[in-house]
Amino acid sequence: MNDNATATIARLNTAEADFTARLDSLLDWEGVSDSAVQARVDDILASVKREGDAAVIETTNRFDRVSVTSMDELRLTAEQLRHAFEQLPTAQRDALASAAERIRRYHEHQKPGSWQYEEADGTVLGQQVSPIDRAGIYVPGGKAAYPSSVLMNAIPAHVAGVQEIIMVVPTPDGVLNDLVLAAAHVAGVDQVFTIGGAQAIGALAYGTESVPRVDKIVGPGNIYVATAKRAVFGQVGIDMIAGPSEIMVVSDGLTDPDWLAMDLFSQAEHDEDAQSILVSWDADHLAQVEAAIERLLPTLERADIVRESLRRRGALIQCRDAAEAITLINRVAPEHLELSVETPDAWLADIRHAGAIFMGRYTAEALGDYCAGPNHVLPTSGTARFSSPLGVYDFQKRSSLIHCSAEGASMLGEVASVLARGESLTAHARSAEYRIRRS
Amino acid sequence: MNDNATATIARLNTAEADFTARLDSLLDWEGVSDSAVQARVDDILASVKREGDAAVIETTNRFDRVSVTSMDELRLTAEQLRHAFEQLPTAQRDALASAAERIRRYHEHQKPGSWQYEEADGTVLGQQVSPIDRAGIYVPGGKAAYPSSVLMNAIPAHVAGVQEIIMVVPTPDGVLNDLVLAAAHVAGVDQVFTIGGAQAIGALAYGTESVPRVDKIVGPGNIYVATAKRAVFGQVGIDMIAGPSEIMVVSDGLTDPDWLAMDLFSQAEHDEDAQSILVSWDADHLAQVEAAIERLLPTLERADIVRESLRRRGALIQCRDAAEAITLINRVAPEHLELSVETPDAWLADIRHAGAIFMGRYTAEALGDYCAGPNHVLPTSGTARFSSPLGVYDFQKRSSLIHCSAEGASMLGEVASVLARGESLTAHARSAEYRIRRS
Repeated sequence: MNDNATATIARLNTAEADFTARLDSLLDWEGVSDSAVQARVDDILASVKREGDAAVIETTNRFDRVSVTSMDELRLTAEQLRHAFEQLPTAQRDALASAAERIRRYHEHQKPGSWQYEEADGTVLGQQVSPIDRAGIYVPGGKAAYPSSVLMNAIPAHVAGVQEIIMVVPTPDGVLNDLVLAAAHVAGVDQVFTIGGAQAIGALAYGTESVPRVDKIVGPGNIYVATAKRAVFGQVGIDMIAGPSEIMVVSDGLTDPDWLAMDLFSQAEHDEDAQSILVSWDADHLAQVEAAIERLLPTLERADIVRESLRRRGALIQCRDAAEAITLINRVAPEHLELSVETPDAWLADIRHAGAIFMGRYTAEALGDYCAGPNHVLPTSGTARFSSPLGVYDFQKRSSLIHCSAEGASMLGEVASVLARGESLTAHARSAEYRIRRS
Repeated sequence: MNDNATATIARLNTAEADFTARLDSLLDWEGVSDSAVQARVDDILASVKREGDAAVIETTNRFDRVSVTSMDELRLTAEQLRHAFEQLPTAQRDALASAAERIRRYHEHQKPGSWQYEEADGTVLGQQVSPIDRAGIYVPGGKAAYPSSVLMNAIPAHVAGVQEIIMVVPTPDGVLNDLVLAAAHVAGVDQVFTIGGAQAIGALAYGTESVPRVDKIVGPGNIYVATAKRAVFGQVGIDMIAGPSEIMVVSDGLTDPDWLAMDLFSQAEHDEDAQSILVSWDADHLAQVEAAIERLLPTLERADIVRESLRRRGALIQCRDAAEAITLINRVAPEHLELSVETPDAWLADIRHAGAIFMGRYTAEALGDYCAGPNHVLPTSGTARFSSPLGVYDFQKRSSLIHCSAEGASMLGEVASVLARGESLTAHARSAEYRIRRS
């Protein structure tokens, strides 16, 4: 066990007495915003609500170090997005188009249908599914500007039938990312505003003279964005408050250690808080992966970030057997789960919580991040216990349908009357009783 | 137009110049908690997180005016719930059981299935649906203790396959509501704690020595409960932050004015902030409903609440025609929509936003509140623009499935490699490239 402070990555063993405590401390992550952040965000939201465009322009100039005088300078048209796409190198253009097509095809399977059924007395019950009118997509700018996130957030909205998709992306120091704009074109975004932070969330939630009010805001952002999303929740819908990205890989010992090391790196390179955990019941295999980590780490472009992330939050965990690995999976409820085992299908029935399950030795998480088809916006920090991947369903909502026949209303009126009087809601009771047939 | 201050209910006309402004002010409702409420809630949550049961006992004694010394005094067993059910009068027992059965049958239709599809190269993509492990149901106590809410919150969880349903209900001054406990029995609740407020939300979100940590909290509550739910969102799932209940009734002029008056009352009797709006293009009919309101209002048990609610937030709106009524519906996105018209089916395609649609003259909203089958927990205050009725889907979540064949991984690896390098995430690229076949 290499639990000395200089190890690249921690080694844990479920057989050790302090295992649960060490695992808990490894998983512990709180993204709570302090009261100073809360107060700044509240101020910005209030000013955007009160002053509209003027507040958006003022805060954007201040935080993104630009100097614009009108919202026109912060708006990109569909033409500009197409232009960004067309001037890309062919390989990137093809890759973007191919990824978009696969993501679209997968998400088409998620479209729930409306349904109805009729009862014996002619009463019809059902549910009508419809898209939201207008969606807002938040895309981070600066160093973490990911065109793949544009695809993953906008395409489900498009498939859902959302009529207008508004994207916001900050451009600190005025720097535009052409790949991000090209992705917006491919994904069917209607309009882009180059604004970010709490001011962009406020503009989408309340609407301004220039920015149309949306019905739901999705997409990741920094602590200011997350705090603002929490504050406007209710005024508009939001997706989720994302924490750092994480992966749990389970290996049966037969996958190439280099492949596994690189899979762990691909998670760790996101940022220093990202989490990479490998679980196996094969101690020799874990040692081989550890050796591969040491050997390959210096060859990485983002070696410093990876090293820090593995040191802070990574782990190689030796467990007893496959059954115990499954217990660990359900305990952690990982965002990404790689089942690098011979028969991953046999595992599915026992896995209760995971954002996305990458099955078999060939299914690197990176394939799912970009182009396999399923969404890469996934529940983090154990929230797979109760949350789902971003999907078409996030851009639709349901209306209950109730159409009582005269006979049905009479029968239901008798029941409703008793229950309403039991709750002392007598106007409810009398409204129901009017529909009871006099015999 | 009776816009003088003494009118029972406002009369609006879409043809008037100030209509939009009057409608906006009528709809305006902000349930934002002030910073004093926020601070009290934060304190209570922190103490429950830190001290567990001890904090729950202390706050419950203080706020609910009881004096208990252990959590055992705040816990009801499944036996006690059954006993409460068995000692009810037969009519109430039958009504509860019948409502529960209908609600269960409707919600069975909402269960989404897992799905998979295989691509030409053998790659399998899909989505696995699973229930959350443990749900927490918040049920308000005191004057607004509604057994129907217990059914509506717990049955979808039960249908979803949730293994453990924990209910909390405050009992101010130690007063238990037998109908609420009986409903918990019928709905399949596993355990009840007689606690409420922010302390109950904290106990469910963090877990204490006695109260198990849940994965999702649903159910309405006062401003302290709503503020606490917003605060713990992310730690656990929550349903929605509910505002006051509202109804919009559209009448073609052929429904009995007494029926419509009582339908409006049934909404208004909830509380003084509840909203009842009737829309029609038939001016004479509106006058008849207004007369019915004046005549019937004094006969109501809750006349004072109804009068105040109609005065503050009610309206009779004259519009031009059916098309304009539909525009109003989509503008308001009502929680409850009653289509008291001859052919309500013909309206459905144009209705984009409504929590529940009650179709035809016989379908009083009260029937849906208790026993028609669909859920009565619905999006309020215009949030039907982006939210759905509470349903089985709220107690389930999805995991993406990706199982690449060797050939599929090779093809996807090429695409992922280009996109990952475009994002400067080279460990992602190399992880994907390992899976590309050497030709």
